[in-house]
Amino acid sequence: MNILSIIGKKRDKKTLTKEEIDYFIKEYTKGTVTDYQAAALIMAIYINGMTNEEITNLTISMANSGETLDLSDISDSIVDKHSTGGVGDKITLILMPIIASMGIPVAKMSGRGLGFTGGTSDKLESIPGYNVNLSIEEFKENIKEIGISLITSSLNLAPADKKIYALRDTIACTANIPLIASSIMSKKIAAGANKILIDITCGKGAFMKDIKDAKELANMMIKIGRLAGREVRCVITNMDEPTGHAIGNSLEVIEAIRALKGEMTDDVKEIILALGVQMILMSGQTQDINEAQKMIVDSINSGRAYQKFKELVAKQGGDISYIEETDKFPKAKHIIPVFAEERGALKEVDTEMIGNISVYLGAGRTRKEDSIDHSAGIIMNQRIGNVVEVGHVLAYIHTNDESKIDGAVKNLKNAFILDPKRVAKPKTILGIVK
Amino acid sequence: MNILSIIGKKRDKKTLTKEEIDYFIKEYTKGTVTDYQAAALIMAIYINGMTNEEITNLTISMANSGETLDLSDISDSIVDKHSTGGVGDKITLILMPIIASMGIPVAKMSGRGLGFTGGTSDKLESIPGYNVNLSIEEFKENIKEIGISLITSSLNLAPADKKIYALRDTIACTANIPLIASSIMSKKIAAGANKILIDITCGKGAFMKDIKDAKELANMMIKIGRLAGREVRCVITNMDEPTGHAIGNSLEVIEAIRALKGEMTDDVKEIILALGVQMILMSGQTQDINEAQKMIVDSINSGRAYQKFKELVAKQGGDISYIEETDKFPKAKHIIPVFAEERGALKEVDTEMIGNISVYLGAGRTRKEDSIDHSAGIIMNQRIGNVVEVGHVLAYIHTNDESKIDGAVKNLKNAFILDPKRVAKPKTILGIVK
Repeated sequence: MNILSIIGKKRDKKTLTKEEIDYFIKEYTKGTVTDYQAAALIMAIYINGMTNEEITNLTISMANSGETLDLSDISDSIVDKHSTGGVGDKITLILMPIIASMGIPVAKMSGRGLGFTGGTSDKLESIPGYNVNLSIEEFKENIKEIGISLITSSLNLAPADKKIYALRDTIACTANIPLIASSIMSKKIAAGANKILIDITCGKGAFMKDIKDAKELANMMIKIGRLAGREVRCVITNMDEPTGHAIGNSLEVIEAIRALKGEMTDDVKEIILALGVQMILMSGQTQDINEAQKMIVDSINSGRAYQKFKELVAKQGGDISYIEETDKFPKAKHIIPVFAEERGALKEVDTEMIGNISVYLGAGRTRKEDSIDHSAGIIMNQRIGNVVEVGHVLAYIHTNDESKIDGAVKNLKNAFILDPKRVAKPKTILGIVK
Repeated sequence: MNILSIIGKKRDKKTLTKEEIDYFIKEYTKGTVTDYQAAALIMAIYINGMTNEEITNLTISMANSGETLDLSDISDSIVDKHSTGGVGDKITLILMPIIASMGIPVAKMSGRGLGFTGGTSDKLESIPGYNVNLSIEEFKENIKEIGISLITSSLNLAPADKKIYALRDTIACTANIPLIASSIMSKKIAAGANKILIDITCGKGAFMKDIKDAKELANMMIKIGRLAGREVRCVITNMDEPTGHAIGNSLEVIEAIRALKGEMTDDVKEIILALGVQMILMSGQTQDINEAQKMIVDSINSGRAYQKFKELVAKQGGDISYIEETDKFPKAKHIIPVFAEERGALKEVDTEMIGNISVYLGAGRTRKEDSIDHSAGIIMNQRIGNVVEVGHVLAYIHTNDESKIDGAVKNLKNAFILDPKRVAKPKTILGIVK
């Protein structure tokens, strides 16, 4: 077997065998297949496509390219939840304690933020003492003891995917549904879940801008899951504006804590219910949607979800007095309102730009090695469809860096597009695919 | 302008502008566009194709990526001749003195051998003293004085083509007509000719194995020529067996000297006439094919072609006593006949294998830095269609390395495929495209 014949086959739109795909992934991970050879093959895959079987083989091969996690000693039906990323997406922080409070084990490894989307691990670290860097043994021990653990991965999961993902970015091959599906699924399979719920964010603040693409991605991941022996369901959620109202690490944790106590925006509530119901159905606790919904509402109203979150934070070394009194979280030195200068209905929000402004203010990273200001960020004060009068607050900027205020205010104003006509409230849940 | 949008356009089968192609070539030559980005773009070009205008722009851009040669002070209609390479291809050595003897200026830069095909510069260097490394000034001076110079290029001609050519080899993108056409034409345009005759070798000992591909390549180069303001004609010649009988450097020079004196195999004669006629027509000396043919025959019969070759060799420092007495060329220590072990008509010759055996014997290079044994090679003793009896000589091996005899004999035997049935003599000239 050699890489030239493999590249040549895909160049000629032929189907690669499992052995050929395994060879490519193994040798590329080792470095004997070069970046330019991988680039040529990826481009050929992008243009000529792959069968479902090929994509599944690629996914499994990438999943097996590094360390893998075996969770079978905890449960044979761990439900993992993954989001394709967005702005202000604090759903994991709210949903996971709810699910764990029902006795469904939650073993969740989260990433860090990069670019305009945030990462759950960074958000958790804004709670003083919270340790996201547990060993796999501690991680499993915690799940056995309290039914939940949220960490960042210490494992070298799917390194081939990491290499290919980085390469795709430099050769104009990011926006390809099969490659995106394969990338997400390889990490999830390596992380040990056999039931996977995926929140496909869709809209201006997501990687998927288009509902058609989001549905195609959903179907592709479900097919990969079926061929790889994993149950996959997808919920497509609107990311035309940020989720909830907070963007930034401790700001989002505070919003999550309030949500766990029952106080949440309509969109967050809808997403929690839609995702939560699917997770409960997948776990097998019930097959009745209404009952699953009721279980979620009960978990919140009874305080069990909030208690489970406190238990999680305590177990991972976090100071729960911050959870009990969210005023203890350090506030940014400058909290600056941004005012509307005209009247109109909020028609459009440049969500990606808002994500980028939040990064600029210190809440995220443009490079991996950047440090984060946990108190920085943005609080949104309007949602699409709202009628805004001159002088109303559109949003608040939270920052410790005075020099950044003017630029952030100016750009943030431009991110809100008002319309003299009425604007309908957008739907939050755009589809459920299973 | 940025490379990602350029790759993305070709990925989506869109047409690249001249500016985009120039940007790619310029930045790739500099190294700011990486090999993996170039690999992705080349693969996209391979799969999605290019319009004739795009290919022409690519060609001109590569031609302008380094130094270029201006021959307008010598003549405004220099006819260049190029071969796509083969085994035993000594046509340049014979044809160029013939053409020069008619007062048509010959300014020819030749390459060195790499892989199974030989290079004219190596062959010339088997003549003691012959200097292929003239400066451009000396090169032009010689052409002005005696009407001919054959050198190897000291110029950095079309460096972008060199990079892309090497890259294509590693990403399964060699066998692509537009890219091959563009590669050949960029070098020819950079080398200053405005009339270009191309000998497209076709068959088992050539890069083009198929007459359909050879014709497509011819048409593509003619189109590029037309758009780039160069007259291009192509002669497609058979390379199912080696050209003439000698393979190896001094062996081919000796064959060429005999040919210049009128003693040549039928295939060499046909090729010399076909290519020579087109060169004469292109030079404008006559538009009559019969007259052009007669000019070639006269040049040989009168001794003018042979004299011109001696003049060339003397001018470039070569010892003409070797030309006058070819027995002076050092002979290989071992000259071993290879016998037929069965009776039959010679049906097929594995010409690429014969080229490789010749390299193995010391006549060529597998790596750029290898040195060459000028006396090593193979003399073919049979042509396709010949009826061979048991014990007849198929070929002679010439080598100074005793250890290589057994392997070479064994492989050479396998390169001759005999058939009990009669086999027709193949055609030498497969097509003329203009």
